[in-house]
Amino acid sequence: MRPHVLVNVAVSADGKLSSRERRQIKISGSDDFERVDIIKADTDAIMVGIGTVLADDPSLTVKSVDRIRDRINSGKPEHPIRIIIDSKARTPPEAKILHKGLGKRIIFVSHAAPGERIAALQPYAEIITAGEKEVDLTAVMELLGIEGVKKLMVEGGGTLIAGLFNAGLVDQLSMYIGSIIIGGTGAPTLADGPGWIQEHEFTRLELIHLQQVDDGVLIDWRVKT
Amino acid sequence: MRPHVLVNVAVSADGKLSSRERRQIKISGSDDFERVDIIKADTDAIMVGIGTVLADDPSLTVKSVDRIRDRINSGKPEHPIRIIIDSKARTPPEAKILHKGLGKRIIFVSHAAPGERIAALQPYAEIITAGEKEVDLTAVMELLGIEGVKKLMVEGGGTLIAGLFNAGLVDQLSMYIGSIIIGGTGAPTLADGPGWIQEHEFTRLELIHLQQVDDGVLIDWRVKT
Repeated sequence: MRPHVLVNVAVSADGKLSSRERRQIKISGSDDFERVDIIKADTDAIMVGIGTVLADDPSLTVKSVDRIRDRINSGKPEHPIRIIIDSKARTPPEAKILHKGLGKRIIFVSHAAPGERIAALQPYAEIITAGEKEVDLTAVMELLGIEGVKKLMVEGGGTLIAGLFNAGLVDQLSMYIGSIIIGGTGAPTLADGPGWIQEHEFTRLELIHLQQVDDGVLIDWRVKT
Repeated sequence: MRPHVLVNVAVSADGKLSSRERRQIKISGSDDFERVDIIKADTDAIMVGIGTVLADDPSLTVKSVDRIRDRINSGKPEHPIRIIIDSKARTPPEAKILHKGLGKRIIFVSHAAPGERIAALQPYAEIITAGEKEVDLTAVMELLGIEGVKKLMVEGGGTLIAGLFNAGLVDQLSMYIGSIIIGGTGAPTLADGPGWIQEHEFTRLELIHLQQVDDGVLIDWRVKT
């Protein structure tokens, strides 16, 4: 059985994840930071796309020392398994996600990934090949289910999230909408990729929670099946 | 004094105004439809960009017969003044906005608009030239203020809205977020155009109202100055 998949993003009021040059913009405040750390500490694995690794170089560690201790006390690893979806194995071997904090890393690549790049990453992560030119996200979820991952949190970016929606692999979407307009045609949004055209292709959501957080808005949606 | 400018949009949960082929997608429900008609009936003028006219061919009339009657009884024209921002005078002379319902229309063009296109539109609208290659939005607002327009509602699209934010001409943003994922790199969002880069360039907002409407969310923001 595949994991429960929660997509968690912070977007500007005009729906952007970052500026058109993919520079990370401060969208949320300290309350939202805490909220995200709580979700992170409660998840088995965190996933990002290679675009996010290259643009933001995140570590995806749990930040609160107390929450890390709680995880250890309950027999969990310090940090959730950190997962990169990276068709061509472009993750830099010095990326923070591979070095900061203890715990397992998995990089999913496709058959299009060059062998020497895979070799360079092997000291730091388990490398799993799934898919021909692109990583097969459905296969990834099946493998993670077998691996014992029950809760998976996806942190972006827009191309990975769109791929997950397209494959029907998202259960919940938590979006924090910040009090800023970023603007820009082509600035990343939470669902990029080719997009959909036909009425039946659009993912439908159900509102499950709505709340002001900091000076923005938190919306939780359940994905309808 | 320029009018009070309210930008009113419906976006998908992933921040899109329409699909990547600019096809209008049903984002909001009947309660939101009513809400928008109430705002429309209470405004002096409604503005759209030429992209929206070409993609959606809207009429921008007040829909409720009762509200139209109330407008007439209080000495107002049936419908708000309908305004198109159209640098090159590309509005089709048969566009619904020029023919449906009584009331004044204004098309703002730039000096780059060909004379024959202007001539073709003159039977249906007042044509005002403001700006060299692009319509000068600040000049537009000054002219509308002189014209007696106190409340202006902007219905889109993303390029016009971004231009208004860029010129510091927006007072309030009402956004309805629908329970659908539309997806697509380059699908229109509420602020397209070149976007902004520097921290001080981003427009900052203040949350003034938050509410579930139909199966989506209505957020009202005040633009900070």
